[in-house]
Amino acid sequence: MEQHSIFENISPLDHRYYQSNRELFDLLRKYISEEASVLYCAKVEAALVKSHLHFQDRLSDELVNALDQAVEKTEPALVYEEEAKTQHNIRALVNVMKQFVPEEIRHFVHMGATSVDILDTANALKLREAVRRVILPQLIQLEEQLIRFATEHAETPQVGRTHGQYAVPITLGHSFAEYVSRLGKSIQEIDRRSLDLRGKLAGAVGGYNATSMIYEDPVEFERHSLSLLGLKPSDHSTQMVEPEHVLRLFLEINTAFGIIANLADDLRHLQRSEIDEVREYFSPTQVGSSTMPQKRNPWNCEHVKSLWKAFSPRIMSLYMDQISEHQRDLSNSASGRFTVEILAGFAAAVKRMVKILSGMTVNMKGLQRNLENAGSSVLAEPAYILLSSQGEADAHEIIRKFTLKAEQEEKSLSEVMKSDKAVWEKISRRLEAVGVDNPDEFFSNPQLYRGRTAQRARDLGSFWSREMNALSTGLKNEE
Amino acid sequence: MEQHSIFENISPLDHRYYQSNRELFDLLRKYISEEASVLYCAKVEAALVKSHLHFQDRLSDELVNALDQAVEKTEPALVYEEEAKTQHNIRALVNVMKQFVPEEIRHFVHMGATSVDILDTANALKLREAVRRVILPQLIQLEEQLIRFATEHAETPQVGRTHGQYAVPITLGHSFAEYVSRLGKSIQEIDRRSLDLRGKLAGAVGGYNATSMIYEDPVEFERHSLSLLGLKPSDHSTQMVEPEHVLRLFLEINTAFGIIANLADDLRHLQRSEIDEVREYFSPTQVGSSTMPQKRNPWNCEHVKSLWKAFSPRIMSLYMDQISEHQRDLSNSASGRFTVEILAGFAAAVKRMVKILSGMTVNMKGLQRNLENAGSSVLAEPAYILLSSQGEADAHEIIRKFTLKAEQEEKSLSEVMKSDKAVWEKISRRLEAVGVDNPDEFFSNPQLYRGRTAQRARDLGSFWSREMNALSTGLKNEE
Amino acid sequence: MEQHSIFENISPLDHRYYQSNRELFDLLRKYISEEASVLYCAKVEAALVKSHLHFQDRLSDELVNALDQAVEKTEPALVYEEEAKTQHNIRALVNVMKQFVPEEIRHFVHMGATSVDILDTANALKLREAVRRVILPQLIQLEEQLIRFATEHAETPQVGRTHGQYAVPITLGHSFAEYVSRLGKSIQEIDRRSLDLRGKLAGAVGGYNATSMIYEDPVEFERHSLSLLGLKPSDHSTQMVEPEHVLRLFLEINTAFGIIANLADDLRHLQRSEIDEVREYFSPTQVGSSTMPQKRNPWNCEHVKSLWKAFSPRIMSLYMDQISEHQRDLSNSASGRFTVEILAGFAAAVKRMVKILSGMTVNMKGLQRNLENAGSSVLAEPAYILLSSQGEADAHEIIRKFTLKAEQEEKSLSEVMKSDKAVWEKISRRLEAVGVDNPDEFFSNPQLYRGRTAQRARDLGSFWSREMNALSTGLKNEE
Amino acid sequence: MEQHSIFENISPLDHRYYQSNRELFDLLRKYISEEASVLYCAKVEAALVKSHLHFQDRLSDELVNALDQAVEKTEPALVYEEEAKTQHNIRALVNVMKQFVPEEIRHFVHMGATSVDILDTANALKLREAVRRVILPQLIQLEEQLIRFATEHAETPQVGRTHGQYAVPITLGHSFAEYVSRLGKSIQEIDRRSLDLRGKLAGAVGGYNATSMIYEDPVEFERHSLSLLGLKPSDHSTQMVEPEHVLRLFLEINTAFGIIANLADDLRHLQRSEIDEVREYFSPTQVGSSTMPQKRNPWNCEHVKSLWKAFSPRIMSLYMDQISEHQRDLSNSASGRFTVEILAGFAAAVKRMVKILSGMTVNMKGLQRNLENAGSSVLAEPAYILLSSQGEADAHEIIRKFTLKAEQEEKSLSEVMKSDKAVWEKISRRLEAVGVDNPDEFFSNPQLYRGRTAQRARDLGSFWSREMNALSTGLKNEE
Repeated sequence: MEQHSIFENISPLDHRYYQSNRELFDLLRKYISEEASVLYCAKVEAALVKSHLHFQDRLSDELVNALDQAVEKTEPALVYEEEAKTQHNIRALVNVMKQFVPEEIRHFVHMGATSVDILDTANALKLREAVRRVILPQLIQLEEQLIRFATEHAETPQVGRTHGQYAVPITLGHSFAEYVSRLGKSIQEIDRRSLDLRGKLAGAVGGYNATSMIYEDPVEFERHSLSLLGLKPSDHSTQMVEPEHVLRLFLEINTAFGIIANLADDLRHLQRSEIDEVREYFSPTQVGSSTMPQKRNPWNCEHVKSLWKAFSPRIMSLYMDQISEHQRDLSNSASGRFTVEILAGFAAAVKRMVKILSGMTVNMKGLQRNLENAGSSVLAEPAYILLSSQGEADAHEIIRKFTLKAEQEEKSLSEVMKSDKAVWEKISRRLEAVGVDNPDEFFSNPQLYRGRTAQRARDLGSFWSREMNALSTGLKNEE
Repeated sequence: MEQHSIFENISPLDHRYYQSNRELFDLLRKYISEEASVLYCAKVEAALVKSHLHFQDRLSDELVNALDQAVEKTEPALVYEEEAKTQHNIRALVNVMKQFVPEEIRHFVHMGATSVDILDTANALKLREAVRRVILPQLIQLEEQLIRFATEHAETPQVGRTHGQYAVPITLGHSFAEYVSRLGKSIQEIDRRSLDLRGKLAGAVGGYNATSMIYEDPVEFERHSLSLLGLKPSDHSTQMVEPEHVLRLFLEINTAFGIIANLADDLRHLQRSEIDEVREYFSPTQVGSSTMPQKRNPWNCEHVKSLWKAFSPRIMSLYMDQISEHQRDLSNSASGRFTVEILAGFAAAVKRMVKILSGMTVNMKGLQRNLENAGSSVLAEPAYILLSSQGEADAHEIIRKFTLKAEQEEKSLSEVMKSDKAVWEKISRRLEAVGVDNPDEFFSNPQLYRGRTAQRARDLGSFWSREMNALSTGLKNEE
Repeated sequence: MEQHSIFENISPLDHRYYQSNRELFDLLRKYISEEASVLYCAKVEAALVKSHLHFQDRLSDELVNALDQAVEKTEPALVYEEEAKTQHNIRALVNVMKQFVPEEIRHFVHMGATSVDILDTANALKLREAVRRVILPQLIQLEEQLIRFATEHAETPQVGRTHGQYAVPITLGHSFAEYVSRLGKSIQEIDRRSLDLRGKLAGAVGGYNATSMIYEDPVEFERHSLSLLGLKPSDHSTQMVEPEHVLRLFLEINTAFGIIANLADDLRHLQRSEIDEVREYFSPTQVGSSTMPQKRNPWNCEHVKSLWKAFSPRIMSLYMDQISEHQRDLSNSASGRFTVEILAGFAAAVKRMVKILSGMTVNMKGLQRNLENAGSSVLAEPAYILLSSQGEADAHEIIRKFTLKAEQEEKSLSEVMKSDKAVWEKISRRLEAVGVDNPDEFFSNPQLYRGRTAQRARDLGSFWSREMNALSTGLKNEE
Repeated sequence: MEQHSIFENISPLDHRYYQSNRELFDLLRKYISEEASVLYCAKVEAALVKSHLHFQDRLSDELVNALDQAVEKTEPALVYEEEAKTQHNIRALVNVMKQFVPEEIRHFVHMGATSVDILDTANALKLREAVRRVILPQLIQLEEQLIRFATEHAETPQVGRTHGQYAVPITLGHSFAEYVSRLGKSIQEIDRRSLDLRGKLAGAVGGYNATSMIYEDPVEFERHSLSLLGLKPSDHSTQMVEPEHVLRLFLEINTAFGIIANLADDLRHLQRSEIDEVREYFSPTQVGSSTMPQKRNPWNCEHVKSLWKAFSPRIMSLYMDQISEHQRDLSNSASGRFTVEILAGFAAAVKRMVKILSGMTVNMKGLQRNLENAGSSVLAEPAYILLSSQGEADAHEIIRKFTLKAEQEEKSLSEVMKSDKAVWEKISRRLEAVGVDNPDEFFSNPQLYRGRTAQRARDLGSFWSREMNALSTGLKNEE
């Protein structure tokens, strides 16, 4: 077997990101390396032979055993050597595999199938398993970290921001609950899409031409063969499975990628020198900058965002691959091979985000400082709402002018409001009505104006915790 | 109201494609023009006021009526005039609308809401209605045309093609059934996604800060307000609804666009001078080329493909808009406004495809000629399969050599096969086993080797016909 | 002429962005509206007739005049009415135009041309003029604003940032000089590309088949005809001009769009509540938030970034349109029509950025506060460099530990350094060598450690100021 | 050194495309593998030290030698091992390299540089060399193959096609000349862009802060250091080189990719069973289909198209990477690492296209058959032009009706034309004027109506042959 140093590789996935995600990528390679691809094709060929044996009443433990061994023996290097002659990858696989199959059933190998029957079915298998054995467990870990933050910091005050400007107070848990909710749904969609990948054994143009020469019910033959692999057939086939099954899975993976990139951006900005509300773990031996010894950069968050930029546009290739002329042109063949790279890039991003959250610390001082700096101005909104609720139609304008005045005179908003007795009176009365007795206290503690953020953070945390447990249990039972 | 000639417009949607899809676009404008946008915002504001009145036990038919009238009166021109002052579109809307609302309830206008509560809710409403009133009915029409072709031509022989090369025979109905099946599923997904758009009334940063100053249960207030519009609230809100609800709808619309582009390409190539199996309708007064009077171009199919190229990459904007910092930055505002253009471009493509299929004729002579030209070579596959089924392990290689010999000696494949008695014997015996008594007839009529294509075309036709009827009925009941 | 309210339009370009950029868009419409497209086609047809007259020695002022009038009379509405019959846009144009051309030369109209000769040539004309009359002047204005900031604030101290973390000091002018330099080059590329757009009059498949029936030297006929419009012919034509001329222009426009989006992001973040170094102009009557009266959002910068997200991915359509089968398929026709939208979106972004910079104020207090907060830690780098220059191989590690110590003991870096006499000695000696006598002063005034930022800002400012003047003069002379 | 089977890799570039492009990829790996990346960084570090020695008058052959040896010894495995500790790749490189540098000059290693000084400079070096040593020579080979076809088949008649419909005759050489011209220009642009990549040594935020602590003229120090590597400095730097230098190179590579994809599509369709004008080489042992023994698919052309779909959308990542906040965020780091993959994918496509053209045969019979099938109808255009030139204003309409009549009555166009004496008379007279004496012969030999296609094919062939020779010579002199 030809061996190479990983540093000779061209794709960062096969050197740098392999190096930094060794355990994860070793696992992934079991599903999406070239070795795995050949193995999956061999498995599909074996299932096809077993199905023939079943339909011909010749199935035996011995033959099943022999076939399973043939699968093992069909090594990529042998197949590639043969392909150099045939210039056709599946014919090469078949030629190699046949050598390891008992002579009496050798003619069943590939019988009735076209190459793409094998390739598309193997692809469905490999994507399903890569997603269910690697991607989903990683995502669940990430979701659990998010749930932990949402729950533990359900009550931690934070200034809410819109447009990068102080808005009104929320809690840090509420910030995290956003991602709990968005990612949770995406995980469930990925789960669902991964279960709807399809195989086919409908022959050269999807019409069961070949198998109708062998069996009276070639549709049932297809169904049975695929069921041995736990797959359902494509509703309609050309030479290929309908492309949308794979497409929709990756559309959703790209959606999850976007959610995680957004999270990375949020955390990145919360680590700005001026904001400093959370901090990535920084080991004592780590170097922040080769020239600025004091630096501690949010480089892991930057890394996640960067992976998103590298992989997200690739979704266009999958959309372009929807188009295949007539019963197929081959122009999706090379491009389709690169699809698994998206899984690797995405897995690396998810894992990095898990690591970030595992080590991240919350800087309570920073959170408090920012909320204080926001000052009473973030209370302009309740002032306006309270005033408005009392029937004052120009409340927004009145308060807007008060904020300008407060700024010019360097006073707090409540001071300015109090100077207008009628207004202050109305506001106080309304506050009382919603259970706040001390308007002074309310207007000097912005964190009291936090709406339902704490409760929502806890509710979403516990809802998604249950959902993740259920999914996790289901996945474990499959293995 | 400022009036312009449509030819002064910049976007082809607002001149050329408006001109060529007048009825359709007049309908679409009711949902996705700027006029419609303002109207939907006003409707949401009105629902908010009604909800306040309900919670304060002040709801009356008279006030509801007054609010509905205020919605009508809030014309875009007035709002834009006001916006020139406020530089804020929703504040402008509110200022204008208030003038038309009875003074006693004027302070309820916008009370508790932030702009994006209104905008995102209005957006969900407008997308839902545009999809359910315009897009889905168009798509159902297209699906019905496809079903018609799949069914009517279930038995029409056609040569199957892979790589643009003759492969094995299918039926024309089977070619169309591909699109029946792919588009059918996409229609159902669009239906489902359009019903899962969400609104919000959770305030500036999604925490119900403002409404918690007014009501004890602001979450219930949101639920009630949105229910007046037939919407459910976002599971979690920042300043915005979770962006994935809209994103997933458009991911699926782009998926359907890809399917239709593939259909357009297939039909385009079937109209090549050398292939000539189908023909777009060509009116007697139509000019094919300004300089080549004989030309009849498949320009409608080309148009559909071209629209796909124009709109498909825009999906990247929606993916990019998933990222909004902290409780939101505004950087999805302008880009989000362009999303409706995708609906218009897609609707134009769907309608054009309906028109193509409505007028398309099938050239039976062309279909027959191509199948004949394909000749007995397309029967190499059954020869190989039949031989292989008889236990001949080298069947593929034997037949491959026969085809080369047939080509060199300019004989038919069956002639060559017959010259090898052992092979012919085996093949004939196997054919008998699957019910074909006359091997000579079989090998001189390629169309007999069509597998299950006819049946599959009919089955898919009738399945999707039922599904479309059900969906269509459901949509009509909504109106 | 059919009139519509602009609020009935679907594309935001034709309502919202028209409204907010009225003067600019009225100018743009002269080049890229449908009205303009028809006009440009008519101009090309007229040039073709003039060329025929020239080659046939029949050119006269009177006929030239008559042709120019015919161009004016060929109104879009008439052409569209005719197209409803012919289903062919250029044949329709020709039919209409002929009515206005003196009968004796009527047969010269369109003679020898194929539709795309007219369309592609008109497209080159219109893009060239839109870019040179609208886009480049806007860009020059923007560049001049940037130069102003780079120059005026060449010496204004600012803390440099990498990874959103304080790095080492620069000047505000240096920050702006980045964009002066990047945008300057992009402007020059756009200028260059706009001058390399090509026309064609090579007929149906680019072979001069038709014109070779009329003239002995049809290549010279093409050259002459196009020269009347100031264009050069495509080096090779199929039915179309080589697509890369237009493509490369838009690749560069998209490049400039990216530069401006980066600038928008920088300014957006500098306006964060916590950073507050620059401020967009905010008019006294403006509303920042419909519910939070105190808000002043960097919404113009957000708008620019958002336009970039809306338009940038559309470049994929142009790349996809490079592919046209054989001597052309029409599948770039609809997509090509949308290309001008990119110009409109880009122009809106450039203009908005000009407006932002025109009104932007620099908050000197904020700049100073951040530099102070960065504190002596930004001086870790010079400490390390100075120490290293003295031959200390472990300088980086020594200083890194000092910064940790400073943080733990809440001391300044210089205090910690002084506590190690050997180190302080080396550093002081080195500082002296580069002209700094007082190490204490140096280490308590971070702004002294600003390298060559001030000088570079001024140099780039004056270089690009000269370049812009030259380009500007050139453009004015063209008009 | 850790070794892996290539079949364990995830990226198809590192297994399948490495396997099928071994020689090419072994060459590429010298520039764009991880091994090469580390080597380039070490080279830049060495140049920096040499520059220090030069400025300090300590440069000697011995030290230069020692540095060059240190570069060799700095193996990736050692660097990665160190990075596991530092979590910082350049700091790791520096730590490793220092061990191999003579102690007396060890402190000069990395002195004054920030990581990105090294990384961006190394990146410019590696891209420049990969493009000039691998990509351009490949492209020149492809261009030469195209020139060969354009020249050899300058006179070979072919039916021109638009919309996939027969248009008017051209020559096969003219079809190829399209690509000669388009690709030729793209090659020259790639050449130009590869020479404009820039390096930097301007420090942490591009302000020469660090080096101004060491030298009086740090700008000159940067210039000198980079000149040792044959590079010029970025006009302005932040922490990074201006991103547009690399971007524009890849924009043009993507442009060339589109041109080649178009060529692949053209050749693909010319190989359709029904068209059959050219044929890819098909070796005797090759298998076209695993189940249809007769198949000979244009799979190499499909492969090229497919690679284009895989790589073309990735250009969006480079556009997105233009945006880096303030003096840089790191969010372009991971994405930037994947850029070299585009070079590998592109190189594989170019090489495959060279191979296709090297082995491609022209099917003269097929070309003739199609031109004959097109029949006299392709002569509708000259009929119309000739008639029109005689002053007949309705020529287009007259001929259009003749073609309909010819079709209905199954006559040739010339027969129908002759039946109208006045028309035939005019046409004949005009033909005579352009040197054709026998109108009957002209209208029965479509290939005579080929315009200037043959001449243009030859002219472009010889022009680009000279250009390629010049470029090729230049590249060889560089080595």
